[in-house]
Amino acid sequence: MSRPAPKVAVCPWDHAWAPKVIAAVERGGALVSDVAEAQALVWLEKQDGDVRSVLHPGIEWVQLRGAGVDHWIATGEVDDSRTFTSAKGAYARSVGEHAAALILAASRNLHVCIRADAWDSHAGQGRLLRGATVGIIGAGGIGQEVIRYLKPFGVRIVAVTRSGRDVPGADLSLTATSLHEFWGEMDFVVVLAPAVPSTQHLISDPELEAMPDHAWVINLARGSLVDTDALLRGLRTGRIAGAALDVTEPEPLPPDHELWDEANVIITPHVANPSLEQDRLLADHVEENVRRFVRGDELIAVVDLELGY
Amino acid sequence: MSRPAPKVAVCPWDHAWAPKVIAAVERGGALVSDVAEAQALVWLEKQDGDVRSVLHPGIEWVQLRGAGVDHWIATGEVDDSRTFTSAKGAYARSVGEHAAALILAASRNLHVCIRADAWDSHAGQGRLLRGATVGIIGAGGIGQEVIRYLKPFGVRIVAVTRSGRDVPGADLSLTATSLHEFWGEMDFVVVLAPAVPSTQHLISDPELEAMPDHAWVINLARGSLVDTDALLRGLRTGRIAGAALDVTEPEPLPPDHELWDEANVIITPHVANPSLEQDRLLADHVEENVRRFVRGDELIAVVDLELGY
Repeated sequence: MSRPAPKVAVCPWDHAWAPKVIAAVERGGALVSDVAEAQALVWLEKQDGDVRSVLHPGIEWVQLRGAGVDHWIATGEVDDSRTFTSAKGAYARSVGEHAAALILAASRNLHVCIRADAWDSHAGQGRLLRGATVGIIGAGGIGQEVIRYLKPFGVRIVAVTRSGRDVPGADLSLTATSLHEFWGEMDFVVVLAPAVPSTQHLISDPELEAMPDHAWVINLARGSLVDTDALLRGLRTGRIAGAALDVTEPEPLPPDHELWDEANVIITPHVANPSLEQDRLLADHVEENVRRFVRGDELIAVVDLELGY
Repeated sequence: MSRPAPKVAVCPWDHAWAPKVIAAVERGGALVSDVAEAQALVWLEKQDGDVRSVLHPGIEWVQLRGAGVDHWIATGEVDDSRTFTSAKGAYARSVGEHAAALILAASRNLHVCIRADAWDSHAGQGRLLRGATVGIIGAGGIGQEVIRYLKPFGVRIVAVTRSGRDVPGADLSLTATSLHEFWGEMDFVVVLAPAVPSTQHLISDPELEAMPDHAWVINLARGSLVDTDALLRGLRTGRIAGAALDVTEPEPLPPDHELWDEANVIITPHVANPSLEQDRLLADHVEENVRRFVRGDELIAVVDLELGY
């Protein structure tokens, strides 16, 4: 089922990412057009632009640039008037690399070494990652990249999804409801689940209490999934060993926030998906979706308003 | 070719590692005995003990605990009177993990994030490791572990060995003599070669000059392989982007050394092989060598006095 090359607009035209995305639309087999004539739109504004100002009834599909669309749904910019696709999965490689970097940094005590200004082979001692149990909370596209990266290190992977389906490469696949029995086995808890009401403060006092005292919490999803106050309590009372956070609550983390003073906290300022490389990764995603749109195939990363992602 | 269970001594008996190593000798099929009756000796002292004080003509084989034996050869403690084996390869997993941790930390700018005390998403920007070229200078046991860990990230591996033999998993295998043509392609240079006269200051001004200005030098071998003064010059003039050093020259690095002040230097105090885990890894190595000794097979990691390792 193929249809004649559809018209796809890329907005705004003068956005820094536009050249790579326009080339991707063309590679995907569509004609790049004006918004007025377009059947589909690739919207490159992050959150400050209002996509509704350019939409018209002829636009069947809108491709957004972000992987998380919770804000868009909350503001009503994404609704049921047409198909919206997010960039879920587009940045999986990058976020997966960042997760692996943070897990290894924590495991090898790099944060202690990097902050030191003198040779102290005692303080610099890390541990082997080999043999550790890594929980992947929200084992979608990014989680599966993380699993692929960690496999050669000989870790045990516990993957958690909404459905509890068998996750490729995982040693154990769970639903969130059975997760509570497994906190005690986690050496690293990698949070990758979407921000929806049911994942708000998914990691709070009871979960931190249940983890081993050498456990690290790694959050690459949204700040709201981890209860910051509970995390601070957990770190200070030694319930867990450390936290590596690419996202925080509040975010950005204010300069006087107590998390900055914690010795075993690694903060990266929401850069798991470095902006230097995003245009390249989004362009790959757009090309694939345009190819599917041209053929009339199902698009990838269609937003489900009920699920919230 | 099997012989009756030989007698193997573990010295000193009261060393912290002795219990795990004694159990490994037994699993390997030998009898644990007194030094006086032993045909083989596992010597657990690092460098301060003198192995010659306990040797006698009946001891055919001495297993040392270290992977590098340059000091032992220099002092004459290791000679041609019998077979000496090092622990070369025993710590490969651990050093390999550390190498992967340092490469990812450099790639994702973790050193900048970890030293920051405020949210700065511009400064925290890293790069994708995917697509990078990683040179493994000295692709022996540890190098092959590094390759195994890095493969899923989609990097290109240039492996350098003395012989230039095809290294499993490498995209390109070179001898050191043809290496000079390839410095310009390296995004990461991982130094793992043994410390012998020909590898002294293997990385100095010309090599740093030839590397791309975004390159990182990662040294996990011995401090002497990298010319520290040249490295400082290279960092200050922007010839290379950074250095991650688990070994330094001088070592330990004095508290007032200029390397501590460099923004793009990560120093870990010779902990690639964390002492917490060494007994477990050495025990695996001893078990394998005892099994070979029992069978009369060739031992692994036999010291070659001429090669110096």
